[in-house]
Amino acid sequence: MRTPVTTVSIQRHDGGQVQDADDLLVTEEPLEIRVGHGPLDQRMETRVSVTMRTPGYDEELALGFLFTEGLITTAADVLRVAPCENVKAEERGNVVRAELHPSVVLDPARWQRNFYTTSSCGVCGKSSIDAVHVACSAPTTSFGPVATELITALPERMRAAQTLFKHTGGIHAAALFHRQGELVLLREDVGRHNAVDKVIGAVLRDQRTPPHLSFKDHLLLVSGRAGFELVQKCAIAGIACMAAVGAPSSLAVQLARSRGITLIGFLRGDRFNHYSPEGKE
Amino acid sequence: MRTPVTTVSIQRHDGGQVQDADDLLVTEEPLEIRVGHGPLDQRMETRVSVTMRTPGYDEELALGFLFTEGLITTAADVLRVAPCENVKAEERGNVVRAELHPSVVLDPARWQRNFYTTSSCGVCGKSSIDAVHVACSAPTTSFGPVATELITALPERMRAAQTLFKHTGGIHAAALFHRQGELVLLREDVGRHNAVDKVIGAVLRDQRTPPHLSFKDHLLLVSGRAGFELVQKCAIAGIACMAAVGAPSSLAVQLARSRGITLIGFLRGDRFNHYSPEGKE
Repeated sequence: MRTPVTTVSIQRHDGGQVQDADDLLVTEEPLEIRVGHGPLDQRMETRVSVTMRTPGYDEELALGFLFTEGLITTAADVLRVAPCENVKAEERGNVVRAELHPSVVLDPARWQRNFYTTSSCGVCGKSSIDAVHVACSAPTTSFGPVATELITALPERMRAAQTLFKHTGGIHAAALFHRQGELVLLREDVGRHNAVDKVIGAVLRDQRTPPHLSFKDHLLLVSGRAGFELVQKCAIAGIACMAAVGAPSSLAVQLARSRGITLIGFLRGDRFNHYSPEGKE
Repeated sequence: MRTPVTTVSIQRHDGGQVQDADDLLVTEEPLEIRVGHGPLDQRMETRVSVTMRTPGYDEELALGFLFTEGLITTAADVLRVAPCENVKAEERGNVVRAELHPSVVLDPARWQRNFYTTSSCGVCGKSSIDAVHVACSAPTTSFGPVATELITALPERMRAAQTLFKHTGGIHAAALFHRQGELVLLREDVGRHNAVDKVIGAVLRDQRTPPHLSFKDHLLLVSGRAGFELVQKCAIAGIACMAAVGAPSSLAVQLARSRGITLIGFLRGDRFNHYSPEGKE
């Protein structure tokens, strides 16, 4: 079992004083995601990705990754995700395999290439956004007005739940909130994109059995900045509102506006910026 | 000419008050890096990577990326990097091409795969570190003791030079300092790995003509956290000391120790943690 935190011996320097100390670090390890048909058939198995991640919720990460990269379109496309047992001892726990529904066609050439090179027909912001539109199965339902007193209360609620951050001081978080402010679930990871994929994967996994969790009437809060890639994941999942403690990028704002996603940035104290107000596009 | 900042109209919310405002965002756009032989021969041209970056210093980014990913081993392997002119109008400025020295063998299969899948023989922290050892041409020369008053002065010097951060509040920086504390060069980018590649690429470009810039007797300071990937880039470049304002990950510390790299984290005010003190491995 791999743990999400690791202890190391360090020297702590403070105002010229030096002392030996133990420090808790966030664990970073590679995760390989494989896809295939049938539980044991490795003939048609494809290695889709290796990502540096913090161990924990790996099955959710794999499910979320496959979905937000547009490689599957519903939770039902994956029958199950399980750790690979047929790997070297030192790789145990770092390789997972998604068993695809028989109806999903496994095209290794397509699955081994990444999102941009498969979907985009050019290398510019517009084509990146066009690629997201193509990958989205449905238009985003508008989130509607954002209540100030509600949205400004969320970062504190997220911080209170960031267990790994409290111990390490260095890990990203993504949290799904109901529009009434209730924290539904939170995931932490050394990679900001992984934290979001874990949240989305958790919801997808839950959708296999009723009562369903849903992205409708929910918003995603991230602890860092809002780059294009994170807004892309919200777009594909149909999350209508994304809020970030940090700044968005130009392309993140363009994508949010073109998809009708409410994008909030610099959410700190009782202040925030609304980057996609009605009428702006 | 693509600009590193973009203006958008937003709504600023502050203590329940709302006002329309203009906001400066860091620009995020894709950059495609191609490699080939000869200035015009596209027959053997390979698309190596598409990365989301902030426009500016794209040639340095390409050179740094090719070097820190182990695809070239010296500055002399690339004769020049230039924007591609034979692209669609909307892609202008987002595609660069590195012209390789005739002695460099262009193996598309190898160049199109990423670092981990080419170099690593397994999916675990140890194999990730082993892959870096293989990619490093020489052992790292020890940086030696770090003077407290010197290292603690650097973040303020870096902040003073972070022009894009001042305007946008949301962009990573990487800065190369001489061991005496002099700021040699600084680059900013929406991607932390890009900021480091731009710094390293700038030094490499300079190495083509004397007097040379060098990584010897220099340290790299990054504005965020120190993940494995950033320490990897220092290891390959032979940068013997890396400091971060934020936290390192477990694998970053393991790599720094195994390469003899001095790794400093949480460098704030007169405090910092030394993660690879002598005798720890």
